[in-house]
Amino acid sequence: MSETEASVKRIRLFVAYDGTAYHGWQIQKNAVTIESELNRAISDLVGSDVMVIGASRTDAGVHSMGNVAVFDSDTRIPAEKIAGAINARLPEDIRVVKSDEVPTDWHPRHQDCKKTYEYRITRGRVQLPTKRLYSHFTYHYIDVDAMKAACGAFLGEHDFASLCAAGSQAETTVRTIYALEVEENGDDLVIRVTGNGFLYNMVRIIAGTLLDVGMGRKKPEDITGILESLDRKNAGPTLPAKGLTLVGYIYL
Amino acid sequence: MSETEASVKRIRLFVAYDGTAYHGWQIQKNAVTIESELNRAISDLVGSDVMVIGASRTDAGVHSMGNVAVFDSDTRIPAEKIAGAINARLPEDIRVVKSDEVPTDWHPRHQDCKKTYEYRITRGRVQLPTKRLYSHFTYHYIDVDAMKAACGAFLGEHDFASLCAAGSQAETTVRTIYALEVEENGDDLVIRVTGNGFLYNMVRIIAGTLLDVGMGRKKPEDITGILESLDRKNAGPTLPAKGLTLVGYIYL
Repeated sequence: MSETEASVKRIRLFVAYDGTAYHGWQIQKNAVTIESELNRAISDLVGSDVMVIGASRTDAGVHSMGNVAVFDSDTRIPAEKIAGAINARLPEDIRVVKSDEVPTDWHPRHQDCKKTYEYRITRGRVQLPTKRLYSHFTYHYIDVDAMKAACGAFLGEHDFASLCAAGSQAETTVRTIYALEVEENGDDLVIRVTGNGFLYNMVRIIAGTLLDVGMGRKKPEDITGILESLDRKNAGPTLPAKGLTLVGYIYL
Repeated sequence: MSETEASVKRIRLFVAYDGTAYHGWQIQKNAVTIESELNRAISDLVGSDVMVIGASRTDAGVHSMGNVAVFDSDTRIPAEKIAGAINARLPEDIRVVKSDEVPTDWHPRHQDCKKTYEYRITRGRVQLPTKRLYSHFTYHYIDVDAMKAACGAFLGEHDFASLCAAGSQAETTVRTIYALEVEENGDDLVIRVTGNGFLYNMVRIIAGTLLDVGMGRKKPEDITGILESLDRKNAGPTLPAKGLTLVGYIYL
């Protein structure tokens, strides 16, 4: 190994974004994505072509307060200063909240972790314009106590096949949910879920199933049967991407 | 008076908007404003040229949960149904929250009222992208208790000349503030102020003066002297428009 190679280090980034203007995280031809913006900004900073590895490939319109990505570079910029230097090259709707150095074999998708998402629903007669890009709107009466009563059945290790969008390439549909709660905040309902990982669209389908319970279309005691059926048709709808925010990761 | 004229009624609208994309409320040549969008949508609805009269001419970037406007029309659409019909012709970042009928001599700027604004400040190391258009960001340490202690001196009837932007055309700079509070909500500080009216930029200058207190640049006991000086130079800066939201009106 040459001396140059020996000085390569792996930098970890915690990345917040407003997903409204992007075609999701993952790099695509002919579309601007969070990943493509990060690659461009970091390559410009370090002076060579850099490609990040991301933890979560969020969909178009999904927001983040702390997605995680890594990249390798021999840059001499101190790891903790890299966040600010990248931000100076990014649009305002993407911000690196923090940067640090991790071992060169640290991979954001191969770590035991707890991952938290929030899904926001706003109730009212008319959708408030300032919330239109960050919350799913409903004018229905919602029984919040029923939604809260339904949360318990999701907890623990289950085969979540009935909460997974068709076409998922996951090897297994077994996941563990550590916590699920519905918080009332004025007109807003915030569904907050923490798990060791989520299947494709799983959080948006959990939110849709809980909303069905809140609207009286399903009962809290139906959840166990929905999970056991392993059939997507029995769960609620996939709610729109804009209400979803990746809150962040805790690595164990 | 002909029968047609006799049937003209005055419709009142409560209007919410995300001010990000607009050049403020007031109609302008070669710029899209909230007022121009309302005039276009209502004219399309009722089939004749309509011009609204607005209560508050909010600046570019300022948001609203309940600005008020009226227009006159002989439309046969029931007053309370007009909100939905206008919304069908408006972009999603402007919503008529409610419509009703008022006497034909009711004018939104000639009524005794209480008007409430909120100014939002977010503290943190890095500005969160999803809040960038709705909150003023600061990474400074803020002494919230000092800000709260400063609120009392603003209350009541005062000559607020020192909190008024230059170039105001107001006949008098005397106004009454009924309530002023600073609420802590996670990383956010919400300054909420209710008065019988506000001078040009007055709420943004109150917010800037309170923030100066929070940053230790001014003391709570300085406020009385700032007001008595009647000199704009002694107050704090005018904070950016994006942090300001017109919450609404209560007509007395």
